[in-house]
Amino acid sequence: MRKVAVIGLGHVGATAAFILVTHGYADELLLLDKNEKKCAAEWGDLRDTLPRNDHYVKVNWSTWDDWSGLKDVDVIITAFGDVSATIKTGDRFAEFPINTANAKEVGPKIKESGFHGIIINISNPCDVVTSILQRETGLPRNQVFGTGTFLDTARMQRVVGEKLGQDPRNVSGFNLGEHGSSQFTAWSTVNVNNKSAFDLFTEEERAEMDQASKDNAFKVGFGKGYTCYAVATCGVRLANAVFSDAKMYGPTSCFVESVGTYIGHPSIVGKNGVEAVPELDLLPDEREKLEASAKKLKDSLATIYPD
Amino acid sequence: MRKVAVIGLGHVGATAAFILVTHGYADELLLLDKNEKKCAAEWGDLRDTLPRNDHYVKVNWSTWDDWSGLKDVDVIITAFGDVSATIKTGDRFAEFPINTANAKEVGPKIKESGFHGIIINISNPCDVVTSILQRETGLPRNQVFGTGTFLDTARMQRVVGEKLGQDPRNVSGFNLGEHGSSQFTAWSTVNVNNKSAFDLFTEEERAEMDQASKDNAFKVGFGKGYTCYAVATCGVRLANAVFSDAKMYGPTSCFVESVGTYIGHPSIVGKNGVEAVPELDLLPDEREKLEASAKKLKDSLATIYPD
Amino acid sequence: MRKVAVIGLGHVGATAAFILVTHGYADELLLLDKNEKKCAAEWGDLRDTLPRNDHYVKVNWSTWDDWSGLKDVDVIITAFGDVSATIKTGDRFAEFPINTANAKEVGPKIKESGFHGIIINISNPCDVVTSILQRETGLPRNQVFGTGTFLDTARMQRVVGEKLGQDPRNVSGFNLGEHGSSQFTAWSTVNVNNKSAFDLFTEEERAEMDQASKDNAFKVGFGKGYTCYAVATCGVRLANAVFSDAKMYGPTSCFVESVGTYIGHPSIVGKNGVEAVPELDLLPDEREKLEASAKKLKDSLATIYPD
Amino acid sequence: MRKVAVIGLGHVGATAAFILVTHGYADELLLLDKNEKKCAAEWGDLRDTLPRNDHYVKVNWSTWDDWSGLKDVDVIITAFGDVSATIKTGDRFAEFPINTANAKEVGPKIKESGFHGIIINISNPCDVVTSILQRETGLPRNQVFGTGTFLDTARMQRVVGEKLGQDPRNVSGFNLGEHGSSQFTAWSTVNVNNKSAFDLFTEEERAEMDQASKDNAFKVGFGKGYTCYAVATCGVRLANAVFSDAKMYGPTSCFVESVGTYIGHPSIVGKNGVEAVPELDLLPDEREKLEASAKKLKDSLATIYPD
Repeated sequence: MRKVAVIGLGHVGATAAFILVTHGYADELLLLDKNEKKCAAEWGDLRDTLPRNDHYVKVNWSTWDDWSGLKDVDVIITAFGDVSATIKTGDRFAEFPINTANAKEVGPKIKESGFHGIIINISNPCDVVTSILQRETGLPRNQVFGTGTFLDTARMQRVVGEKLGQDPRNVSGFNLGEHGSSQFTAWSTVNVNNKSAFDLFTEEERAEMDQASKDNAFKVGFGKGYTCYAVATCGVRLANAVFSDAKMYGPTSCFVESVGTYIGHPSIVGKNGVEAVPELDLLPDEREKLEASAKKLKDSLATIYPD
Repeated sequence: MRKVAVIGLGHVGATAAFILVTHGYADELLLLDKNEKKCAAEWGDLRDTLPRNDHYVKVNWSTWDDWSGLKDVDVIITAFGDVSATIKTGDRFAEFPINTANAKEVGPKIKESGFHGIIINISNPCDVVTSILQRETGLPRNQVFGTGTFLDTARMQRVVGEKLGQDPRNVSGFNLGEHGSSQFTAWSTVNVNNKSAFDLFTEEERAEMDQASKDNAFKVGFGKGYTCYAVATCGVRLANAVFSDAKMYGPTSCFVESVGTYIGHPSIVGKNGVEAVPELDLLPDEREKLEASAKKLKDSLATIYPD
Repeated sequence: MRKVAVIGLGHVGATAAFILVTHGYADELLLLDKNEKKCAAEWGDLRDTLPRNDHYVKVNWSTWDDWSGLKDVDVIITAFGDVSATIKTGDRFAEFPINTANAKEVGPKIKESGFHGIIINISNPCDVVTSILQRETGLPRNQVFGTGTFLDTARMQRVVGEKLGQDPRNVSGFNLGEHGSSQFTAWSTVNVNNKSAFDLFTEEERAEMDQASKDNAFKVGFGKGYTCYAVATCGVRLANAVFSDAKMYGPTSCFVESVGTYIGHPSIVGKNGVEAVPELDLLPDEREKLEASAKKLKDSLATIYPD
Repeated sequence: MRKVAVIGLGHVGATAAFILVTHGYADELLLLDKNEKKCAAEWGDLRDTLPRNDHYVKVNWSTWDDWSGLKDVDVIITAFGDVSATIKTGDRFAEFPINTANAKEVGPKIKESGFHGIIINISNPCDVVTSILQRETGLPRNQVFGTGTFLDTARMQRVVGEKLGQDPRNVSGFNLGEHGSSQFTAWSTVNVNNKSAFDLFTEEERAEMDQASKDNAFKVGFGKGYTCYAVATCGVRLANAVFSDAKMYGPTSCFVESVGTYIGHPSIVGKNGVEAVPELDLLPDEREKLEASAKKLKDSLATIYPD
């Protein structure tokens, strides 16, 4: 049986839980949130869908002081935080103080529970929080990773697909770097209909689309106060790849040796989490951007772990 | 192609739209909300899921002054309103003033668009708003119906299923009446494992479960500020039955001749909407409750249409 | 991860495997058939679907002399046999000699593998083969059950649904007894739109529909040489209920204490297989038919195990 | 409502129908086969799945002399033929005589019915039969296309994915040309993990995998007497793209202007069928192979239409 825990039942965590239930992507679900009233309410709403659902899913919730249920959970999705800070400032680092603290609280509790599965982190700033969770849980690096630019890449595919009037799944290629302002579209990796992005689009068009793929999160966030559907869909997709041991190639926030930090980069996802991080042949300016983005992430991480 | 419009992109409408996209239950989706910024944001969030979605769905939105897109839509889901009023008071009639006005605004606009499909109303008070929408659009009664006690019945199934530790889909039977405080579980219709509810449960237990199936909406609502997953799931299920012409038997807010109003009652749902309302053999006290609930609904409707 | 083995890759077993793959209902699949060439071919055809499938599923096959892979499988679906005998004679007992031998060969091999999960048997005569598999594997009775009248009940629902022009899922109630000629529709359990079958249909109509629900398998079988879609769908549904621990109420070939044999009867299916067999309040003539059917099954079983 | 007709209910056509039903990818299904007994049997088997299916689908069949039902069908999947000839010879052209005749019979009947939707042809030799169906129905070229190398490409992805131990969906690129012996893997289009096939594999490895992707159909065919799951999955995927107007980029048997015939080549598939055929920048030897394959197809077509 596939057991998933969702920690943090804000809009993103609740949506992830709902996707798992409505598609039957998990057999058992455990909900945890500091706001126990909210947690119980989401549990109630999810339970009420079951009589009209194609799949039966066992949904449970725990109080914030009881982490024992994590022991035999296979995958944890972390989605804590306070998105209003991010939306207010237009910068995911606005959640740095709150989520640094959250990760330092949650990590040890996960560790103590005896959990030995896979953690998929969505909380922002995604790469930093993923780093902290890995460190605090003591789990091997492959077992802890984040949605990172799996989402930004989707947004880029959507922007490029829209420009061409096509299914965004026709678009291959990646956004790399921080799940935040220092990320970038690695156009050398982008192809549509077997044509390179360099042949399809002018430099100006590429710059516009790069910006648009970054901006869209905030357009959505400013309009509805948060984003939830795309990011939660991304988190669940990664959980699917773990459960089916798909060896799926896709960008995650994973530990990239060459830049020495968790950062958005293509990886192979299977039952052991991030099982490989195949190196990309980037153009010199793309390599520079990736390193600059990594530096930003390492610098902020150093404010927490100054070792 | 299956075209659906969602009018009202609050939590419920947005969730309904998301279900349609994540399952590919519609081929084309049109979003409409007075709050255009919110509407565009939901559109953006839904569009961003497509690169990670199993299904391609065309998602569009219109400004609030452009209803022309409804012309060739097959099914409209209405989910406007302000749930905070309901949550504050614990009574769905708190939305009566706002949604009466909304329905009187939206109905004629739908009519003018040339729409001739099926309307599935979720807005509260569900039975009253459904009545108004039918009247204002001039569509035949079968083409306009509401989720009504399709949701409350699910909640009853969930409560009974939980009590027995079983899949709630093992529970048959219905909640009848207003989607609101005057509804009731018609225990004479309830069976689990081929046993009557009268044999399975004491009168006290039945009374508790009846209450619990009514209360749960508010437990959820008080905890998260609204409910969305179960009710949106119900709305989409009904849309599925219309598209597949399933002749599905289930409770909706439909026009019941014997009590002279839209009210929660089992019906047959197919491509023409509510195609039949098979009469139930209720116990005398159940019949009385249904009539009392109908009276409440007719009385409030008379305050709007005093003819 | 959900691991399923399918033993016997005829039309039914192959279709069951395909359903598991096309819906992603298993994470890992192991195929076994005495005809290794056929087994490898089904493996190849299933593997070729993966690039176009929404789900990744690991599909493996073993040679007929290697049963070690069953050790950590969760659910085995058995679908061996030679349907041509059944089709030729119009009687599932025509497969008695061949499948008695098969079950006596397969059972001990499953036992030796160290398998300790759930067996869902489809092979005919279903109730007898299920009995043998339970006995030969030494697994507790709850862990071995058959599709039995889960399929015949579906056929009855379909026949009744067609008569009324409605979704067959509107029809509740059961076919009981042998998955074979001595089965019958227990009309006292059948309801549609909250009306009893006794009120909806004349005795003549009920007799016709009872016969039709039994005959349909052979109409299909005579027309295409076998049946596969409905029966395989039933088998997979039961596997779903096991994986999600649904406590689903439905007829299976389960051990019914009151008649002392495996036979088609409603049961509760969860992670431990058949977790309960809630007794039915049958009419006297229905009880008689059930006992007659049980006697037939016990008599034929006694020819194998004359203890 | 999405109406699909399947013409030819052999293993492939029946499997396509089953996928449509089990996933609810169509709302209404019409079955047609010269062997009416077989056709009715498949109809019966599919109908019997409905009580256990998540989706309601209306399934109908017509006698071979009644094609009137095609009038308002949206998509026709043609899957007639006699695969035993192909399996016996290891060459899909073995079905040339029988399916040329079939296509010349079926095409005009489709035309007379008033059908004006999309035809997706699976019958072999796929490219030739697609050509004939387009010509005989008089439908515009975009409205008639075949599965062609959409299937062979999947097989190549599977072979390459297996070699690397990865999800075959990580593999991009195409098999081009005839859905038959003159096809080839266009390695210049193949990428895995953002690496070119030329960097990943030696010439010898590529030649082996090219051969394997062609051979697998026959390995499967020789083992089970036919292939059905992968090819039917491909056919239905294309129907999905039509219904959702996905503008999906994928190889089909489409009319390629530069070589003057229907042949396996990437195309954009949407509600109007093949809406564009974006040219590939092939290597000179790949271009030669494509032209040689086209010549073979044109030559055989000329034996039928010597104009």
